[in-house]
Amino acid sequence: MKITMKRFLLTAGLFLGLAFTLNAAEMASPNGAIKVNFELNNGVPTYSVTFRGKMMIKPSRLGYELSGAENLLDGFTLLGQETARQDETWKPVWGENSEIRNHYTELLVKLVQPSTDRYMNIRFRVYNEGVGLRYEFPQKGKLNHFVVKDERTEFAMTGDHIAWWIPGDYDTQEYEYTRSKLSEIRSLLTKAVTDNLSQTTFSTTGVQTSLMLKTADGIYMNLHEAALVNYPAMHLNLDDKQMVFTSWLTPDAQGKKGHLQTPLRSPWRTIMITDDARKVLASNLILNLNDPCALSNTSWIHPVKYVGVWWEMISGKSEWAYTHQYPTVKLGETDYIHAAPSGKHGANNANVRRYIDFASANGFDAVLVEGWNIGWEDWAGNSKEHVFDFLTPYPDFDIKALNAYAHSKGVKLIMHHETSSSVMNYEKYMDRAYQLMNTYGYDAVKSGYVGNIIPRGEHHYSQIEINHYLHAIKRAADYHIMVNAHEAVRPTGLCRTYPNLIGNESARGTEFQAFGGTKPGHTAILPFTRLQGGPMDYTPGIFEMDCANGSHCNSTICGQLALYVTLYSPLQMAADFPENYEKHPDAFQFIKDVAVDWDKSIYLEAEPMEYITAARKAKGTDNWFIGGVTGMKAHRSDITLSFLDKGRKYEATIYRDGPDADYKTRPQSYKIEKRIVTAKTKLSINSVPGGGYAISLIAKSE
Amino acid sequence: MKITMKRFLLTAGLFLGLAFTLNAAEMASPNGAIKVNFELNNGVPTYSVTFRGKMMIKPSRLGYELSGAENLLDGFTLLGQETARQDETWKPVWGENSEIRNHYTELLVKLVQPSTDRYMNIRFRVYNEGVGLRYEFPQKGKLNHFVVKDERTEFAMTGDHIAWWIPGDYDTQEYEYTRSKLSEIRSLLTKAVTDNLSQTTFSTTGVQTSLMLKTADGIYMNLHEAALVNYPAMHLNLDDKQMVFTSWLTPDAQGKKGHLQTPLRSPWRTIMITDDARKVLASNLILNLNDPCALSNTSWIHPVKYVGVWWEMISGKSEWAYTHQYPTVKLGETDYIHAAPSGKHGANNANVRRYIDFASANGFDAVLVEGWNIGWEDWAGNSKEHVFDFLTPYPDFDIKALNAYAHSKGVKLIMHHETSSSVMNYEKYMDRAYQLMNTYGYDAVKSGYVGNIIPRGEHHYSQIEINHYLHAIKRAADYHIMVNAHEAVRPTGLCRTYPNLIGNESARGTEFQAFGGTKPGHTAILPFTRLQGGPMDYTPGIFEMDCANGSHCNSTICGQLALYVTLYSPLQMAADFPENYEKHPDAFQFIKDVAVDWDKSIYLEAEPMEYITAARKAKGTDNWFIGGVTGMKAHRSDITLSFLDKGRKYEATIYRDGPDADYKTRPQSYKIEKRIVTAKTKLSINSVPGGGYAISLIAKSE
Repeated sequence: MKITMKRFLLTAGLFLGLAFTLNAAEMASPNGAIKVNFELNNGVPTYSVTFRGKMMIKPSRLGYELSGAENLLDGFTLLGQETARQDETWKPVWGENSEIRNHYTELLVKLVQPSTDRYMNIRFRVYNEGVGLRYEFPQKGKLNHFVVKDERTEFAMTGDHIAWWIPGDYDTQEYEYTRSKLSEIRSLLTKAVTDNLSQTTFSTTGVQTSLMLKTADGIYMNLHEAALVNYPAMHLNLDDKQMVFTSWLTPDAQGKKGHLQTPLRSPWRTIMITDDARKVLASNLILNLNDPCALSNTSWIHPVKYVGVWWEMISGKSEWAYTHQYPTVKLGETDYIHAAPSGKHGANNANVRRYIDFASANGFDAVLVEGWNIGWEDWAGNSKEHVFDFLTPYPDFDIKALNAYAHSKGVKLIMHHETSSSVMNYEKYMDRAYQLMNTYGYDAVKSGYVGNIIPRGEHHYSQIEINHYLHAIKRAADYHIMVNAHEAVRPTGLCRTYPNLIGNESARGTEFQAFGGTKPGHTAILPFTRLQGGPMDYTPGIFEMDCANGSHCNSTICGQLALYVTLYSPLQMAADFPENYEKHPDAFQFIKDVAVDWDKSIYLEAEPMEYITAARKAKGTDNWFIGGVTGMKAHRSDITLSFLDKGRKYEATIYRDGPDADYKTRPQSYKIEKRIVTAKTKLSINSVPGGGYAISLIAKSE
Repeated sequence: MKITMKRFLLTAGLFLGLAFTLNAAEMASPNGAIKVNFELNNGVPTYSVTFRGKMMIKPSRLGYELSGAENLLDGFTLLGQETARQDETWKPVWGENSEIRNHYTELLVKLVQPSTDRYMNIRFRVYNEGVGLRYEFPQKGKLNHFVVKDERTEFAMTGDHIAWWIPGDYDTQEYEYTRSKLSEIRSLLTKAVTDNLSQTTFSTTGVQTSLMLKTADGIYMNLHEAALVNYPAMHLNLDDKQMVFTSWLTPDAQGKKGHLQTPLRSPWRTIMITDDARKVLASNLILNLNDPCALSNTSWIHPVKYVGVWWEMISGKSEWAYTHQYPTVKLGETDYIHAAPSGKHGANNANVRRYIDFASANGFDAVLVEGWNIGWEDWAGNSKEHVFDFLTPYPDFDIKALNAYAHSKGVKLIMHHETSSSVMNYEKYMDRAYQLMNTYGYDAVKSGYVGNIIPRGEHHYSQIEINHYLHAIKRAADYHIMVNAHEAVRPTGLCRTYPNLIGNESARGTEFQAFGGTKPGHTAILPFTRLQGGPMDYTPGIFEMDCANGSHCNSTICGQLALYVTLYSPLQMAADFPENYEKHPDAFQFIKDVAVDWDKSIYLEAEPMEYITAARKAKGTDNWFIGGVTGMKAHRSDITLSFLDKGRKYEATIYRDGPDADYKTRPQSYKIEKRIVTAKTKLSINSVPGGGYAISLIAKSE
């Protein structure tokens, strides 16, 4: 080493809890609980993380393997370091809270690889609940355009932790979670890979982020990424001998893992650390690591509670396609006008009007209609490039009249753009598709990416697709359109920057209850994992658990009600049929009442996959809503309503599982109770496995 | 075989020159010279072609190898046959002639592969100058969506013919032609593969279409394809032991060669056969095999003679890029406003105004301006997805003022969309880019596809790119925009269906004269090959052969003038600088005078790569223009002007090489002579190697 290892302390360093030598640096979180230690170890950049003095991330390497160029893994020298701290509050356009505090200390480590004249910086932001780190490549020296073979960011675990994981996959996150020790992943992974229309696993120890972990001494950790822009999505591959996770990027059609260019900032790699599971749910780490809102005007963005012509196709009652006459169809060639209707087409004028009437009568904002446009007869599984045009309605869907009718009833239709993952085709039509929405007054679109990606060989989480999803969001913003993208990459907090991204699926949603069912506990892990990056359009609210296709929804009605609070989203569907809600008007009342935007959110209790209880104060009101969801084990929720205004009275309506409720045999057993409560009220509520409860708390006028 | 081989003749068959058994059929051209014989040989579909009774294509197999399904190569039985004949005349929107005769006999052979319940038809159209054959798959039986491993259409040669060929390549046609025996291709191919920014050869005996051939007894053949739509481009791979060419499609990123769906019509595979080389040039076989015009309104489509800010960048005098300040740039991030201009930017306001003034003064329709938009600093060779936005001008290009100035002078600007082959990026911007053109009054765009394709792994001639090029043309038509696509797939006559496709490069154009030069003879083979599919934007008219970068243009001034007639195109550039034309106003007069649209065209003499002499009657006038181009050997052209109106007088201006002209040392030696001529006039004109001559014939008022 050319640089003397002499240690010296700076005043600023001391002030920030920072101590560094020329080859090492340390940065503590604002409250001092979390410390990041950076060290250049014989030219190899490494970092480690402690929590209250205890090692949580052992020394872990940082760097890149490149394609066609020398690696950026070693041979570095330290050029310098910069520190900073931030404590600001910002207001999201919509969210769990009306204000979000962004409070961190920062360490920027500047490195050079002298033999190649290439510069690489590592920026750490240390929050009280975790760490974000990213690579930054200045436009300097010999690094301009470069191709990544793989990113080699390590996360060295300190033991054989418990993990809640889904298989690493380049194309889907629609898996159930497995809870296991890290050492058990290898033996359990094959079984965890259930069928999907597009899936590409890559390793017997590869898992996805956000990954939830728990140490033997009860510390929770969460590994994820934030601000995924123009870069492939990251998975984690486990060396289960050393218990070290290494980043594993999604390749492109040629096996490359990123075409990058300086000046460059990688996505943030995030490590959340806390001894309280509720703090994982309450954390804004991912949002805070994203850029502020990029839209100058957000007045057109609003939360949406909706119903839709959707569950009836999912559950086998009706179909997206209009006709059975042709084995396959060609847009622009197939004669739909004279085709024999199958009689099973869900998105027909009469049925859509029925949903509009129901939405209007019950205070919903919007009606999603899937299957309105031509092409559904052979849309999936055929690698069909020109699969949809996003412009041409089926003969029995009068786009003009239906929108006019909806608007006359105070309701909007939600557009649907299933792409069948033919992304090049969607981009060809995107401007026209959005223009059509403007023409008829749609202001939100649900987009879908079912099946293998076209351009063929690319994956759902390849860089070029990441760029597509963001393009679709940005272009939609130009047209004042809100986006709810299904089967797109799992979110990484970009909804802060582009708040017209009001929803994503990107996990196993309610639809799988109609595809054979999902085990209880799934909705009690999602907020710890999938929802860390942004809201999910989970489409809850199933009241009739037995589907026309024979599948059974593993939940109770109260378990469904709870989700409107526990699964935060500014976009919430009441997914079941109008007629099923009309059978249970008292339980349905909660769905009608519950808010979709909030001033404040509190997590009352939480354990991954077991239970989550959340309380939220409805935006611009004094009313609160509570939801408690329960996993495979029955749960008794003992809560105190101390978050209510002191001395104020609230009318509480409590929706709880009936004592004989059973998600398999008696899912529709529930009890509804009304009482007056105050901040001093304590409640004890039992939920059955797969069940839950919901409470509305309406403030009495003072 | 289940079907009896009993031969019987039908009346219809006799009438059309058709004789068939249940396993064979024959169809003769209208004049009887060419005969196609189809035979199902033990279940294998085969065809052969004779010319005046002499075998030209020996029995050759037809069919497909499929991916993930049984092949469509054998096991067929004949279901039936249909015959037809056509004799019609149609009028192109622009062209070499104002009317085109489409005169053919037709044989449709209907096959079934009973073991798989799949149907495949072969349609033959037999013209007096050649044959088209294509596959048709009805939507019937078990064949719907399918994936091609390769098409296996054979063209079995009858001997070791002479071929004029360029290397088979998935990404470029920008090669010089080699004249050799078929048996010599293998040894000459490596040398023929000269450098290109994107190139992918596939076989040591692989060549491109259109392929020009000549038999030992002087019969010319040409193999090509027509109406390439939603299908990969075809190359030909030679078995040089058996002398059999087999179709070799362009693969996609996964190595697949077509995702197809019934009902399906493949592109036509064409075989031109004639004993007169001039008939190859005069043939409309490719156009006739394309669908009629698909545009209801073509009033906005017009021929264009243009100059441009282009050759100065190509030849090293100026640059596309605006600044040298940054090693690489990022759209939306790089600060161009405050960047230091390099001083070498060609597309600056003053220079563009100079070209507008020159165009206006000399009767040109338009001025192409390349390098007007941001992004050129690192546009090539970096696999950069977001390389151009097609919307943002450089600081020194005032798009509004320059268009207004041009329009005030009766001139239009031609838009330039270099994509750097980042096709997904271009499609993201396409609507906005065309809208910008509408806003400022551009009605033509030159698009470019330099470098490797993005989506990565796809090729310039892959199916998905074929679909892109046509999408760009069709979408442009929606905006009333004419397209001139460079580095796109070589054309296959689609300009009949979409006449807003007014030009393509898709071969080695004039630019290579500034990249080290192109041998004389190149322009005397292009009309036999590349131009078979449609016009080429060859950009002739170089008067100053010595480039700023040291390269030398291997041509004489008169050789350049000839090209305005010999290389048919409705889009013709005068590529050199205004100041170079101003040095030779007398020679430049021909470029000013020559028409770009025609009522009639006659090929007076032709031999591939040696000489071509064409005479064309200017659209809507009585004036004729003659061009004669010469290859590596000096040529004396003896012509009679018998095509002129009998008894009428014409003022002829003859531009010929000076006796001491030499394409290397004295390219600017020419003689101009004026005289009165009639239909009885005989001319004898000498051209030097790399030279040529041009004649304008202005009808005297009667």
